[in-house]
This record gives sequence, C-alpha cells and structure tokens, in this order.
Amino acid sequence: MSELSVNHLLGIKYLNKEDIKLIFETADHFKEVINRPIKKVPSLRDITIANLFFENSTRTKLSFELAEKRLSADVINFSSGQSSVKKGETLIDTVNNILSMKVDMVVMRHPNPGAGVFLSKHVKASIVNAGDGAHEHPTQALLDSYSIRERLGEVKGKKVVIVGDILHSRVALSNIFALQLQGAEVMVCGPKTLIPKYIGKLGVKVETNLRNALHWCDVANMLRVQNERMDISYFPSTREYTQQFGVNKTLLDSLNKEITIMHPGPINRGVEITSDVADSKQAIILDQVQNGVAIRMAVIYLLASKIK
Amino acid sequence: MSELSVNHLLGIKYLNKEDIKLIFETADHFKEVINRPIKKVPSLRDITIANLFFENSTRTKLSFELAEKRLSADVINFSSGQSSVKKGETLIDTVNNILSMKVDMVVMRHPNPGAGVFLSKHVKASIVNAGDGAHEHPTQALLDSYSIRERLGEVKGKKVVIVGDILHSRVALSNIFALQLQGAEVMVCGPKTLIPKYIGKLGVKVETNLRNALHWCDVANMLRVQNERMDISYFPSTREYTQQFGVNKTLLDSLNKEITIMHPGPINRGVEITSDVADSKQAIILDQVQNGVAIRMAVIYLLASKIK
Amino acid sequence: MSELSVNHLLGIKYLNKEDIKLIFETADHFKEVINRPIKKVPSLRDITIANLFFENSTRTKLSFELAEKRLSADVINFSSGQSSVKKGETLIDTVNNILSMKVDMVVMRHPNPGAGVFLSKHVKASIVNAGDGAHEHPTQALLDSYSIRERLGEVKGKKVVIVGDILHSRVALSNIFALQLQGAEVMVCGPKTLIPKYIGKLGVKVETNLRNALHWCDVANMLRVQNERMDISYFPSTREYTQQFGVNKTLLDSLNKEITIMHPGPINRGVEITSDVADSKQAIILDQVQNGVAIRMAVIYLLASKIK
Repeated sequence: MSELSVNHLLGIKYLNKEDIKLIFETADHFKEVINRPIKKVPSLRDITIANLFFENSTRTKLSFELAEKRLSADVINFSSGQSSVKKGETLIDTVNNILSMKVDMVVMRHPNPGAGVFLSKHVKASIVNAGDGAHEHPTQALLDSYSIRERLGEVKGKKVVIVGDILHSRVALSNIFALQLQGAEVMVCGPKTLIPKYIGKLGVKVETNLRNALHWCDVANMLRVQNERMDISYFPSTREYTQQFGVNKTLLDSLNKEITIMHPGPINRGVEITSDVADSKQAIILDQVQNGVAIRMAVIYLLASKIK
Repeated sequence: MSELSVNHLLGIKYLNKEDIKLIFETADHFKEVINRPIKKVPSLRDITIANLFFENSTRTKLSFELAEKRLSADVINFSSGQSSVKKGETLIDTVNNILSMKVDMVVMRHPNPGAGVFLSKHVKASIVNAGDGAHEHPTQALLDSYSIRERLGEVKGKKVVIVGDILHSRVALSNIFALQLQGAEVMVCGPKTLIPKYIGKLGVKVETNLRNALHWCDVANMLRVQNERMDISYFPSTREYTQQFGVNKTLLDSLNKEITIMHPGPINRGVEITSDVADSKQAIILDQVQNGVAIRMAVIYLLASKIK
Repeated sequence: MSELSVNHLLGIKYLNKEDIKLIFETADHFKEVINRPIKKVPSLRDITIANLFFENSTRTKLSFELAEKRLSADVINFSSGQSSVKKGETLIDTVNNILSMKVDMVVMRHPNPGAGVFLSKHVKASIVNAGDGAHEHPTQALLDSYSIRERLGEVKGKKVVIVGDILHSRVALSNIFALQLQGAEVMVCGPKTLIPKYIGKLGVKVETNLRNALHWCDVANMLRVQNERMDISYFPSTREYTQQFGVNKTLLDSLNKEITIMHPGPINRGVEITSDVADSKQAIILDQVQNGVAIRMAVIYLLASKIK
C-alpha cells in the first residue's frame, strides 16, 4: 500500500508529487463519505487528536474538528485564551504535557513561522500545521489545488494567479509550492509593496496590473484583504485596493473567456470581490470549504496510519 | 405519520395548534428517555448540527447541546467571540460556509430580531431560533406551556399572567403566541413604561397592579429583571421594581388559592421572586429546565425527519 | 466488591486509607487501558458529567475531559466566562439548573475554599472537587502519591518535602493529607512568610533551608511559583526565590543520593527548577501528567458506581 513520505504535515515544501496524489485520491473517498446520509467512518476510533490554536480561527478550526469527528477520533480542543502558555510555560512543555495524556496527533495554529517544524523535532506525535505565521498553511493549499482539479480536471498545465497581499500570506506561499509541484504555472499580482523580493527566485511571474493577470490565467485565487493591516503606511487604502485589485463582473465579462474564481474566505464583499462574482458559477468558493473537510480527513487518516 | 407544518422553528407565530400538540407528544417520549439510566437514543446519528451563538447564553446553549447529544447527533459549536463575523463577513456567508461542511441544522441565537427568518430564506438548512433580539424565543415558550400542561393537565382555559419587562422580552412575546394558540387567557403585568403599546392588539389583558394580576391568574410567569438595563431612565430602580412587582410568600398566601409560579431563569433571588417562593412546591422552575431538554429533543427530532 | 466510603471527592481529608488503596488499584487498570491502542472503555455510557470551571485551568480541565471521554461518559463544559453566575445567580441555582437537565456528576473548580463541600450539601449529584481556592485539590494529591508509588514501590515510610508557597497552595495541603494517610513523612520548605502558622499542628516538619530539606528527603515536590503574586510585599522577588528555593543539577549532584523530583506544572523553567533537572531521569513530571488521567478515570468510575 502507498503511504506518505512524511510523518507530519508541516508545509507543502516537505511533500513530493506522489504525496499530493495520494492525499487527493484519499480525499476523493472521504468526499463520497461526507455526501452520504451517514457522514462518519469508524477509522480512527483509537486516535486522540489535540487541536491547539494559539491564534484565533473559526473556519479552519471547525473544518478540522468536523474532519476528526467524522473519522471517529477523540478530540480535545485547546485555545490560547485558556492556555497555560500565558503562565510562562514553553511551547514544548505545553505540548509534552498534552502528549503525556496519550494524545497521538497535534493540529496546531501558531503565530510564529516554523512553530510546527520546531515542535516536530522535540515531541513524539504527528504534527499537522494549521497555519504558522506568514510561513505555510498546507491544508489550505491542498484544498485549493483539489478544488482546481475538481473543476478543471487537472492542475498540471493550468495558469493560476494569486491576487492580493502576497507578502504576509501563508496561503500564497503554500499555494505556490503546491501548484508548482503539480506542474501549474503561477503568477502573483498585487501592490508592489506587498510582493516579497524573493518571489522571483521561486519561479513565479509577477504582475501589478490585475487586467493583465486575468487575461493570462485560468484561475484567480483572490486573497482576503486584511482590513486590520490597512492603516499601515505601505498599504493602499481599502478604496484604492478595490479599484486596482478588486474583481467585479464587468471586468470578468470583458475577458472573453471564463476563468475560475477562488477565495480562501472569509470574503469582504465589495472589497476584493463583488457579490455578483462571489455568487456566480465561476466562483468555487463554497466547493473549497466542502473540499476542506475531505482533504483534512485524508491528511489525518494518512498520517494516523503511520503512527500505528 | 404526522409531521410539523414547518421546516424551521423560527417563532411560535409560524406554528399551528397541531404542531404544538405533536411537539408535546414527542417531548413526552423524550422525557421518558432522559429519565432512564441510558439517556440517549441513536435517532440522529446521521445529522450534524451547528450551534451558532452570536450572543452569550449559558442555559439555553447547554440545553440544546444536551438535547443534540442525547439524540446522537454530531455537534459543532460556534460563538461570536471566535467567529469571523468580527472580520466583516456577512451572516449569510458565515452560515453558508458552515453548511458547505455538510451541516444539516443550525440552532442560532442572534441579537437582531428576524435574523433566523432572514437566514431561512437564503440558506439550505433547517433553522431553529434560539432567541433573536426582542422578537421570539420559541423553545422557551414551548417548554413553558409544556410545563403548565404537566402541572395543570392542560393549557386550554388557563389564565396566565406574564410579569415584568414585557417591552424587551422575547420570552413574553413567544409565550403570548403559544398560550393563545392553545386557548389560554393571557395577561401582562409590569411598569407602564415596559409594556409595549401594540400589546392591546394581541388580545392580551394589561394590568399594572401585581396583586390584581395574581388574584386573576392560575399561573404567574415571572420574567427575569435585567439588572443591566436598570440604569435607563424609564426603568424603575431594582428596589422600586421589587416593591411593586416582586412575588413573596406573604403575597401568595394572601390570595386564598394556590397559583403556579414559573421563571425562565436565571433567578435574581429577592428581586422578582423571593427564595421561599422559588423553593416552594408552587414553583415549577426546575421542571421547566428539565422539560427544556425534552422539548428541544422533540423539536430537533421532528425537524430532522423533514430534511431526510 | 469494595467501594469508596464517600459519595463525593471533596478533599483528601474526607478519605480513609482504604479509599486511596481502592483508587490506586482502579487507576492501575485504567493506566493499562490508556496505554492500549484503543484507549476507551464503555463503562459510563449512561452517565452525564458537567465540568464547571469557575476559575481558569488548562491541564486539569483537559485531564478530566479526557478521563471522562475515555470512560464514554457524556460531557458538558461550562466555564465562568460564559456562565450566568455573572448575572447574579447563586451557585446553588446554577448547579441545580444544570442538574435538572439530568446531569449525574459535577466536576468543579471554584475560587472559594469549601465551595464543593457547600454544594454537596445542597444538590443531588456526585461532586468532584477540581480545586477550591487555597483549600484542596484532591485529584492532584492522588496522582502525586500514585506517581511516588509507581517510582519507589510504595508511599509508606517515604520522606517527602513540598517546596514553595505553602500558604496559598491547595496542592500542598492535599498532598500533606494524602501522604500522611499513607504513612509517609512530610516536610514543607519555603520562605518563612509563605509557611502557614497552623502547619506544625498537622505534624509536618518545617525547614527554610532547601539543602537541608533535600538531604533529608526521598522525594521533592516543587510547587509552581505564582509570578502574579511576586509583587506582594511579603513575597521574595523571583531572583531571590530561585537563589534560595530553586533546584538545579549542581545542588542535586552534591547530595550523594538520587532523590525523585516532582512538579504539578506548568513549570517556570529556571525559576523553581532548572531545565537540566526538569528533563532528567530523576524528574517524574510527565509521569504525573499521564497518571492524572488514570487517577481521574478511577475516581469518576468509583463515584459513578455509587450513584447507580
């Protein structure tokens, strides 16, 4: 039987092509499961999973929790508000304590880039990175590629533009790695100040004109505008951003081809994307959410089979 | 087999007499279940329910959660503190996202009157209103009537007075609808400033003298005093309120008949009700709490049978 | 079959020697269970447990929650942030409300000493004290003794020093009772201002010099420094505390014998204990955490058998 080349999901950059193929084929199975009346399988009755969220999250946490419950795993939740991290305990001590209670897997969101990688070297448990600062958000990138494959048949050869604040986005970085690994062409598009200088070295096209980017691409992944960052000097105002990088129906209709629109959510309607676009058939935003549960079931299932 | 006339429980005003009868008969069954050693039934193993609380709640949330678990449904919880609603997402987007994860039913508390009705028109899921602003709190009214039926044999023909801040109370409004539908006579009693002007149009008696109200009624439903509102100008002080609208043992004993005392909780002992009344056999306050679980099991069970 | 002499676990001072023996033998069984691939038993499928935390806690709450889930009990969680206690409701009313929903057992942490004892006299449910102010923390003391028994064969005849802020510590008090009941000798060691005057009456040795204490003992239980208290006048500064009462490798190596080091967690590395000590084989800190789940399973299981 095939298995993953890794014991943790720390980032897309640690995966190979076959890993992604295996995850997608496993997710195909679980997607069927969650569309049945009984959406559960008894696969992981012997696994206890701790969800450690040291940073707020709603949809990612809910998606992981549902994935875990539908695999029949036992789940404990832990968020930073309650945690003894506030009491000065180190991350390793916190996690080792939880693991001593016989926990098999840790799903962790943490504000520090590399927190998952660091942890995986010091504790005995399978680690799933649910977002570590501006570093990686691998399950988001997997569900994004999976949704492209579902809509367009395959990822290979497709042209994908990621639009928005590339500099601060773990979604952008994980998507770049995942898309390139599968043979897609990747472009980033956004305000010059929000595109990191190292981006050229990743073999990614750069474009600061949205119309040009949309003319080139098959798929546009519209990143969420972080309103809370918009008061910083090198950011455009929300109005400027929308004028230059917001997608609306008129713009899409002027392209003379139908491109696929993605968004990791939550949407700021009228900012990075208008309502008529978000609710159109070109948008696969809710498919992404549904696929997120299937992808997370697949990742957890495959990692669990390596710890048994 | 009989079924509800509605696909959602948005308010008592959308129900008919037969719906209430069916809910009560179903609750009779579940009340037996929760009094058995094994308090669970496997009925809803194929249902995932999201509890969305955009407003704080303790007892209502716990009651729904217990009801759902005892029906063996899968449950995910969501409260506004964590939610991406804060990130500017619309209610419809938040709920559609959750539904995309294959959720079948939404139990929602929301500060805006009509939030549930609005949502039911825009999303594909069964909606249970767990309180929407000053509008309705239908499961509370159902458990209140169910508790009257349990104590007095039937609701029809009974005289019920609702005492307190009628103006801001969803409990009052839902109770008025439920009681009238079942053929009870309803009176409201409270400070003039806290009785809405439209109340006469609902066919409800109005009384500002508590002694007169108690002489008239079979049942007094004592609403909770919202201490946090007592600093607003048109409210009486807590002391004034207690003097005029608080129930104590001396007052009850002077009536020469035994009336039934209800309270939706949490109680302010010594304000709207004294301890000797709250703990007396006339009070059915804890029965109401227990019946709340059975009523919520019934409502969820009956709505679930319509989505299958 | 043997059973506990009590219907609640309110404090070690209400237990007898045979109770502790029974709890330990039951925990031996559950420790095997949680080290199997399937870490669950179906024992308490008919029990609903409410975890009421009126004070923040992470590890104790997680440990109880895991213990309950591994016994297959239904669990509802309740923490003070959400609770209606804030709305002026009395503790008895809050708990009676929860019990009316057919809850069989209450695990409670509360800031007031004696809150559990008080509650046990007024409500019909089995109460487990998960820490009540500076009074008792019985499951912590049980897991501590259980861990000594595991490491050293038995508790009887062992010399145990508890180091730190004895005055404010429920862990210290419960440990003193538990150790004496099992025939261990107990010493406390800490700054004079943090040792209560009544301690002599408990038959406990007092020592203010750490080196002397360590020379005497077989086991040192290092209490956590409460940084948040260190600004109060009669407390030493953190630096002073560490110099006089912190344990480091050099100090331990100078003893010419190997003592066992315990800590209830979370650790302040470099304050009450250095990293080389915390991570050494002499320290059984993570064993304590693991044993905590087994001990809590045993306590809950034994109390549940008395309410059936």
